[in-house]
Amino acid sequence: MSIFSDSELSRDAFLGGRVSLFQPRRGYRAGIDPVLLAAAVPARAGQAVLELGCGAGAAILALAARVPELALTGVEVQPEYADLARRNARDNARELEVVCADLSDLPAGLRQRQFDHVIANPPYFRSGAHTAAGDAGRATALGGATPLEAWLAAAARRLAPRGALHVIQRSDRLPELLAGCAGRLGSVEVLPLAARAGRAPDLVILRARKGGRAAFRLHAPLILHEGTRHLCDGESYRAEVAQVLRGGAALPWPE
Amino acid sequence: MSIFSDSELSRDAFLGGRVSLFQPRRGYRAGIDPVLLAAAVPARAGQAVLELGCGAGAAILALAARVPELALTGVEVQPEYADLARRNARDNARELEVVCADLSDLPAGLRQRQFDHVIANPPYFRSGAHTAAGDAGRATALGGATPLEAWLAAAARRLAPRGALHVIQRSDRLPELLAGCAGRLGSVEVLPLAARAGRAPDLVILRARKGGRAAFRLHAPLILHEGTRHLCDGESYRAEVAQVLRGGAALPWPE
Repeated sequence: MSIFSDSELSRDAFLGGRVSLFQPRRGYRAGIDPVLLAAAVPARAGQAVLELGCGAGAAILALAARVPELALTGVEVQPEYADLARRNARDNARELEVVCADLSDLPAGLRQRQFDHVIANPPYFRSGAHTAAGDAGRATALGGATPLEAWLAAAARRLAPRGALHVIQRSDRLPELLAGCAGRLGSVEVLPLAARAGRAPDLVILRARKGGRAAFRLHAPLILHEGTRHLCDGESYRAEVAQVLRGGAALPWPE
Repeated sequence: MSIFSDSELSRDAFLGGRVSLFQPRRGYRAGIDPVLLAAAVPARAGQAVLELGCGAGAAILALAARVPELALTGVEVQPEYADLARRNARDNARELEVVCADLSDLPAGLRQRQFDHVIANPPYFRSGAHTAAGDAGRATALGGATPLEAWLAAAARRLAPRGALHVIQRSDRLPELLAGCAGRLGSVEVLPLAARAGRAPDLVILRARKGGRAAFRLHAPLILHEGTRHLCDGESYRAEVAQVLRGGAALPWPE
């Protein structure tokens, strides 16, 4: 186990400064994805939230910044990221329990608990498809060895009845996501995220419920940027997206 | 077997009059869906095309109107619709072989053949979820007893190597469609079809290839109508969609 030294870390502001995260300068660095994921979760005060693969804590701490009085638990397999998540929680004055474990082999204490919400931002690349030589931590975060189905299975097991899972993932892995929900979770909805109008969505947010029985729903894409192409280097997020990323608002989930 | 009498039929124009179809006045009636399906198929002259569940022949005859010199075969389980498809082919001066059979139990002669393209517009409702009392034909066309997986399995078996399947279906059955492709077809692409910008897509066109190995692709929705809401009762199709529906053009499939 290697703990990051301060010189290896940068401190970055999220949600317009509402959340501040130490992250490795080299390695997995949170972008807007965990913030969008957290913004999609309709959690209410008093509920229990579990993040699978919490990394440095970006998603669950972003959620905590929007919804008060959540009981926060994160699972992270890499000790140095688990440690960073604990440090970031303290630094943001949040109580976050971080369990350093493989999500496919959780400790007994966690296996006995259920959560109102489970969130996850699983690695975007299949193991082996993307290798970052000399940086095993980044490689695990980007292309972990755990198949998506194991993430969905672990989430389904930890959800309370009617509990909700939210996952953000590359859209090209939608078939795996849906296959992983089959027989475990229902009322599945998919919100594609597209950079611009008319462009293919690179990402999807999947919402599913334990015991849900509603038909599958594919929503219109959420468009992130104004315009149909990249016109300048400045900020171009659409107003409702900027409200999520900078203002800490909930993501406008389709009715 | 009951054959429709002329008084039970209407004669309807598709593709701006390029295709004329007798259809039952009461029963399954083709809308724009088979036309959009046919327009998505990149068939070339000389290729062999199989439609599973061809009904009165709307999709395969629309395809024949756009692409010359195709070898056309349709499978239809209901004898009265198979007969109608044969009549519509003659009436449109097309050679269409119609095999009256259950797609899960095709005759040996057909099981020995392979096709460059398979197309299908399977029933939109699960059997039992939608019943039309007193009209078994319409009930079969709308909510056939054959699960979607059987449609995809039959299509995969009849496709030549690198052959392409195109299916149009309600978007809420996308998980079933993708599950049915798993292990049988690859290079899967999904084009959602939305009535208006910002609205959830009601339909999807799925494209998949026998032996395809490309990653799954979710495309931006094809928007059918101008504007964000229904403003008047007149024609409101976007120009490129009107070119497909009335002008007989190919559907602009995303690169």
